[in-house]
Amino acid sequence: MSGEDAPAQQQNAVDQKQETKPAEEPKTEPPKTEPEPAGAAEAAAAPAAASADKAPEEETFSYRALVLTGYGGYDKVKLQVKKGKPALKAGEVLVRVKVCGLNFADLMARQGLYDQLPSPPVTPGMECSGVVEAVGEEVTDRKVGDKVMALSRFGMWQEVAVVPASHTFLIPEGMSFEEAAAFPVNYITAYMMLFDFGNLRPNQSVLVHAAAGGVGIAATQLCKMVKDVTVFGTASASKHETISEGGVTHTIDYRTKDYVEEVRKISPKGLDIILDPLGGSDTHKAYNLLKPMGKLVTYGAANMLAGQRKNLIAVAKNWYHQFSIHTLSLIQGNKSVCGFHLGYLDGETELIAQTMATLLDLYKEGKIKPRIDSTWHFEQVGDAMRKMQERNNIGKVVLTTEPMPEEEAKKEEAKKEAKKEDKKKEDKKKEDKKKDDGKKEEKKDDKKKEEPKKEEKEEEKKEEVKKEEK
Amino acid sequence: MSGEDAPAQQQNAVDQKQETKPAEEPKTEPPKTEPEPAGAAEAAAAPAAASADKAPEEETFSYRALVLTGYGGYDKVKLQVKKGKPALKAGEVLVRVKVCGLNFADLMARQGLYDQLPSPPVTPGMECSGVVEAVGEEVTDRKVGDKVMALSRFGMWQEVAVVPASHTFLIPEGMSFEEAAAFPVNYITAYMMLFDFGNLRPNQSVLVHAAAGGVGIAATQLCKMVKDVTVFGTASASKHETISEGGVTHTIDYRTKDYVEEVRKISPKGLDIILDPLGGSDTHKAYNLLKPMGKLVTYGAANMLAGQRKNLIAVAKNWYHQFSIHTLSLIQGNKSVCGFHLGYLDGETELIAQTMATLLDLYKEGKIKPRIDSTWHFEQVGDAMRKMQERNNIGKVVLTTEPMPEEEAKKEEAKKEAKKEDKKKEDKKKEDKKKDDGKKEEKKDDKKKEEPKKEEKEEEKKEEVKKEEK
Repeated sequence: MSGEDAPAQQQNAVDQKQETKPAEEPKTEPPKTEPEPAGAAEAAAAPAAASADKAPEEETFSYRALVLTGYGGYDKVKLQVKKGKPALKAGEVLVRVKVCGLNFADLMARQGLYDQLPSPPVTPGMECSGVVEAVGEEVTDRKVGDKVMALSRFGMWQEVAVVPASHTFLIPEGMSFEEAAAFPVNYITAYMMLFDFGNLRPNQSVLVHAAAGGVGIAATQLCKMVKDVTVFGTASASKHETISEGGVTHTIDYRTKDYVEEVRKISPKGLDIILDPLGGSDTHKAYNLLKPMGKLVTYGAANMLAGQRKNLIAVAKNWYHQFSIHTLSLIQGNKSVCGFHLGYLDGETELIAQTMATLLDLYKEGKIKPRIDSTWHFEQVGDAMRKMQERNNIGKVVLTTEPMPEEEAKKEEAKKEAKKEDKKKEDKKKEDKKKDDGKKEEKKDDKKKEEPKKEEKEEEKKEEVKKEEK
Repeated sequence: MSGEDAPAQQQNAVDQKQETKPAEEPKTEPPKTEPEPAGAAEAAAAPAAASADKAPEEETFSYRALVLTGYGGYDKVKLQVKKGKPALKAGEVLVRVKVCGLNFADLMARQGLYDQLPSPPVTPGMECSGVVEAVGEEVTDRKVGDKVMALSRFGMWQEVAVVPASHTFLIPEGMSFEEAAAFPVNYITAYMMLFDFGNLRPNQSVLVHAAAGGVGIAATQLCKMVKDVTVFGTASASKHETISEGGVTHTIDYRTKDYVEEVRKISPKGLDIILDPLGGSDTHKAYNLLKPMGKLVTYGAANMLAGQRKNLIAVAKNWYHQFSIHTLSLIQGNKSVCGFHLGYLDGETELIAQTMATLLDLYKEGKIKPRIDSTWHFEQVGDAMRKMQERNNIGKVVLTTEPMPEEEAKKEEAKKEAKKEDKKKEDKKKEDKKKDDGKKEEKKDDKKKEEPKKEEKEEEKKEEVKKEEK
């Protein structure tokens, strides 16, 4: 996705700040942001942009945005208000965002482990759903009011996003904004890995790590479209029932069992396709677990993520164990090793569009459907990230742009206070060192925003404790 | 292919020797070894086995076989006579061989660079065509008289070969024994690389190195089955017309031009699939020449073959430049690296059988057809190997088991004598060193065969000169 320029413009518009209000639980009922009929989109836009089609909108236009202020823990992503309507270049559209998807790359990016995100301050986020609010010149296939999902390398976690029209896809009838925000990254990733690199065919066997995650669920659904495919899925035991219902043939609790042994018991010759989001030593295991003509598709380094801040030991370990393969070994094993990451498929607009067209057809046919784990307000982004990073989700974690009702915010605050005391001491110990490191970074990042600094620092201290309590 | 046991039995039967008669030119008209009707096969078998169905056949049964007597030059493959009818184990068939295919692995094997061939003395050869002459117990799908092609890790270059019935495939109507011997290795290799690992689809681009070779021609034909595929083919200029007619879209003379530059001129973004039989630094070039989502399938190390004997510098260079890839690079490039070699697909009987069934259907539909470069007698195996190794072939080089008519042999001998004088001096110089090395090896290999040694040595000296003259 080449949306780099647009978000850069939007970054400059930051001039107000709003604290991220930590909240522990997601809304159990996702907000029903049902789409408006085409043309009515502007009227229904969030309050901050209510006067969006008035003449002096360039000045009065403002919108909330999540901004990564520096690399580090969950609290590094702050809710801010940007001002000024972003200008559209030819071929671009302005999307009034409804829901944003969280991806593992966002978690990596927060720790400074994803080079496709520009340096902070920057708005993260690779995908969102929403309504087209304005179209730039030369845009012929999108119009104001179109309900779309959008893909970008970053910049999607805000109420208003600018993307090339070619990176938007019309939301089909019956698909909610939550589903739409959960769709592009996970399904394109799963599809291209299984059907382009993997060349999945009937009677084959597939290992899906993190089978309850966004990509895992998408991959399982796509596997079921092919006759007699055996899916091995790893997940913690509490998720097994759900993933079994979703199509996983053999569930493996990777926390209590050696998944290699478990697979060999059932499939002694090994597997046809292995999707590897883990990296490090798990990539070696995957390679050895391949059948002749088997394909390993590695698409991440989740093993690098240990704790909420960059863990140098985990990163070093991952590098040390990074899989490297000689062609002679590939030849003698008749094996294939592939790497995939949508974030690096910059510029492959046509390929992505073709894949999305196929996937949307499958959605319409009822063959695939995103599963939403939980929907969070922008104010809760830290907890949303934590839920995903700690692997407590089943399905996709998404953010809604709907502001958090004040009452709800207060209630959560109270809940937190009660829990806080119990965990305070233990967390303090654990975090004391990290806090210092974090502070240093924070200072650098916040140089340009001098005004509200004092109050912010006070807030930060409090928050760091709050956030770690879970 | 797991035919190891059978050829081992056959090796022990060697007790007679017959000199390889060097011959410069292949027969321009391949011998028309048209198949006999089922049942008549034995009667028509080569003279050495004329009494094959008589009672004491275990003793009188004899057949000619090519035997690799030690690693080294072309002359290391000698024509010998084996005695005694090989016993069949359950599931095996005895094939009266008509034609044998030459493959690059055979050339590597002769130099000791292919670990799937047991130590000499051993009969090389991965494929042949012929007629089933006897069936072992439990063989239900083959009967005496069946015309078959056979695949094995080695042991196919002899008049009589024993293979598991599951490694034989019925020759379809209209396919000659030459075509049948040229079919399995090249077409299975090309098919699995393009359609299993490569996942070739319409509008894609493919680079085929050595496009006039056996695999190259098979790959080109298979590419043409898919709509709008662009084939880049490398070959020396004299072969361009032929490969263009065969379906290569853009011919590249790798001897005078940089193929990477030539490809980039036409396809600046790179290629979807690259088939790499070369290894070493060419694998690096191939990797860099891939598009995002591109697939590199490496299937050999032809760059290791420099000269007729093992060239340690070429081998070391190839090892030094051997391609090794980190997963991070694969991920950031969205690329796939695959290794293929049919010789290591041991035991994948079902997979091979499925692929052969598909390929034979394509043959029957007229979509693919092996191109025979030249047919040689067993006596000419050295020249046949040389032609292939020096890349002077267009299509497949095959050996016929038909004995060389005496008149023809004499004629060729005379031709050679005339040419010999001119080249003698220059060759002597070049070969003096090598001869010494070769002798040492020869002595080791021939320890067990003491009787005819004296005469043989005399012969060898003469032959070494003759063979190098070309």
